[in-house]
Amino acid sequence: MIGPEIDRLIQLLAKLPGLGPRSARRAALHLIKKRDSLMEPLAEAMAAAAAGIRTCSVCGNLDTGDPCHVCRDGERPGGRDRTTLCVVEEVGDLWALERTGAYRGLYHVLGGTLSALEGVGPDDLNVPKLLERASRPEVTEVILALNATVGGQTTAHYLADRLEGCEVRISRLAHGVPVGGELDYLDDGTLTAALRARRSL
Amino acid sequence: MIGPEIDRLIQLLAKLPGLGPRSARRAALHLIKKRDSLMEPLAEAMAAAAAGIRTCSVCGNLDTGDPCHVCRDGERPGGRDRTTLCVVEEVGDLWALERTGAYRGLYHVLGGTLSALEGVGPDDLNVPKLLERASRPEVTEVILALNATVGGQTTAHYLADRLEGCEVRISRLAHGVPVGGELDYLDDGTLTAALRARRSL
Repeated sequence: MIGPEIDRLIQLLAKLPGLGPRSARRAALHLIKKRDSLMEPLAEAMAAAAAGIRTCSVCGNLDTGDPCHVCRDGERPGGRDRTTLCVVEEVGDLWALERTGAYRGLYHVLGGTLSALEGVGPDDLNVPKLLERASRPEVTEVILALNATVGGQTTAHYLADRLEGCEVRISRLAHGVPVGGELDYLDDGTLTAALRARRSL
Repeated sequence: MIGPEIDRLIQLLAKLPGLGPRSARRAALHLIKKRDSLMEPLAEAMAAAAAGIRTCSVCGNLDTGDPCHVCRDGERPGGRDRTTLCVVEEVGDLWALERTGAYRGLYHVLGGTLSALEGVGPDDLNVPKLLERASRPEVTEVILALNATVGGQTTAHYLADRLEGCEVRISRLAHGVPVGGELDYLDDGTLTAALRARRSL
């Protein structure tokens, strides 16, 4: 006999990735005990995000406001580098690249990969917009930062073909040994790629 | 360059038990993608719970409304059994017992265990109220459903002493082999307890 409000909270929390029924109950209990310091602020943050977040009409990023923070920063003098577009599959990939702090250009979020099986064609992804952006005179390089999966690599090859008409350098991320990785545990494909792409010291 | 609203959402989600920084990002992305079907309802459920949940003045349970659902059900004819009180440490333990569906009496949530080290005495727990409830004429049994830890068992002994004056049967949960458990993996204490408390078939 758990009250219906608490039960509903647990049901909804259990829909988050990484939380099962048991951890959803733990999370609910934690929230209930920290009503003022956590539950209220989180409820407000969620309500604000739910109301404010939209897809950036320029790059496909998800952010409060359109254009997104990255695109807006590209528009101000001294802001992000407008000559480079980094093409990613999903917003999570954009976040991952932003966390590195190593990239200062703009992004383009495809929203997935081509898939004949699932009926995903170029028009279902954010491809026409990418071709338009890549044709702009200021753009000199397009980095295809797609996942090293079959879908990602197929899409990268397709995009490289389509981008041939635009006068841009097309690049992809390097394959190789992950930093901190041990050779003994690496798969053959990665090790082969790392060996072929070896660099002089 | 992740927007401040999204960043705040991730920070708050990372404070939930079971979610680290990485899974908080995944959860935030999931919420953002399911704005209408998950993020908004969850924000509303949290706001409602934050505003409505209070500690039951009768038993110490956390619920929307005071008295809680369990205590209120005990007050209606044909409702829960008012002759039995089940003493638990925390609200999570009450939830666990409710999930079994095997208990139909009332509860009493202590809010922790006695601890000389941490300076937790009987008056810091919900003990005076328990003694008052146990003295009522309708109460015939008090089940001490405390954890089988040092703190839980110390508290159980203390409560058994204090409850001697009340005319109630005092019981505790059985120790033994967990259902589905294998003897080979059980600790000696549990196995000894299970052997001593063996029952005729």
